[in-house]
Amino acid sequence: MTLALDAAAQDLLFREARTANTFTDEPVTDEQIEAVYDLVKLAPTAFNQSPLRITLVRSEEARERLVRHLAEGNQAKTRTAPLTAVLSVDLDFHERLPELFPAFPGLKDAYFSELPAREQAGTLNASLQAGYFILGVRAAGLAAGPMTGFDAEGVNKEFFGDGKQKVLMVVNIGRPGADAFHPRAPRLAARDAVTTV
Amino acid sequence: MTLALDAAAQDLLFREARTANTFTDEPVTDEQIEAVYDLVKLAPTAFNQSPLRITLVRSEEARERLVRHLAEGNQAKTRTAPLTAVLSVDLDFHERLPELFPAFPGLKDAYFSELPAREQAGTLNASLQAGYFILGVRAAGLAAGPMTGFDAEGVNKEFFGDGKQKVLMVVNIGRPGADAFHPRAPRLAARDAVTTV
Repeated sequence: MTLALDAAAQDLLFREARTANTFTDEPVTDEQIEAVYDLVKLAPTAFNQSPLRITLVRSEEARERLVRHLAEGNQAKTRTAPLTAVLSVDLDFHERLPELFPAFPGLKDAYFSELPAREQAGTLNASLQAGYFILGVRAAGLAAGPMTGFDAEGVNKEFFGDGKQKVLMVVNIGRPGADAFHPRAPRLAARDAVTTV
Repeated sequence: MTLALDAAAQDLLFREARTANTFTDEPVTDEQIEAVYDLVKLAPTAFNQSPLRITLVRSEEARERLVRHLAEGNQAKTRTAPLTAVLSVDLDFHERLPELFPAFPGLKDAYFSELPAREQAGTLNASLQAGYFILGVRAAGLAAGPMTGFDAEGVNKEFFGDGKQKVLMVVNIGRPGADAFHPRAPRLAARDAVTTV
């Protein structure tokens, strides 16, 4: 066996798990999200910068404020998902570095005093964490429906008016409903994605 | 139990797994990398765009060409890792969309005819896939040592001279050696990273 991860876990996270487009009305609790977060927060980021922020959209009012910025094809499923999370990068993540990376007390100022450096590193590392989060949702036995079809500027103004966070993606979360899945599209073969030098 | 993922898998991927800074000399085979790829390729990207490319640095000559662009603190461990992978985004990922997303034949031209659109979407989605890949390395029972401390322009010129790929990160891969791990730094509590609206 080439992989150490057991077959059930491979199925749960990768092989059987699928992006869901419909959901049942079974609620997703704060405890479930906290369990997901407490698992995926452990996966690595550069200098432990941990720039991902998760905004749980629970109120009807907040959901409508979000839905109006989504592409039309993403609106109905987001209205009916039991929970929707806005994943964003905290552009002021460096303020937490003294506590997150105590081995290098000057880190915050050495590398991250300028916004463009924070935006570049923060976006990369928060996107990594978004990947961990999607798998974490699956680890909770839930389906994720990640979306990038939205007006990012609109979402940023609506939810992050102070300009200190930028949306990366929006993720519907819940148990899959009727006809939740599109057919799985083909993936690139290893020979097309992996090169040796 | 709030998570469906079994405890052994949680440990393997998140709780016990750590970024390694030293490695044994046990080789990492092409079969292991292919098993990792064939698992993580299944995780989602927007429109199945699958923009991550993996360059396995195996020859001594290629390793030296890479090491010279790394930050000093990353050089020695990269010289002694059994395998090093350069993760990059394929800025021409759209050429494969007709086969990767057959449900929308015009997709390639509708959204991705311009390079800035491809670079934005490709970088986000390849970074997501980099997160899947790091967990996939762990799923193979190996340790990953992801690094962003390098001269990106230098690596791009050295390995992607045609400008069609851009490096995202470099990942050492192998079995952890002596003193492989730094102490795990504290993570942000859920209350600091998760907000409800």
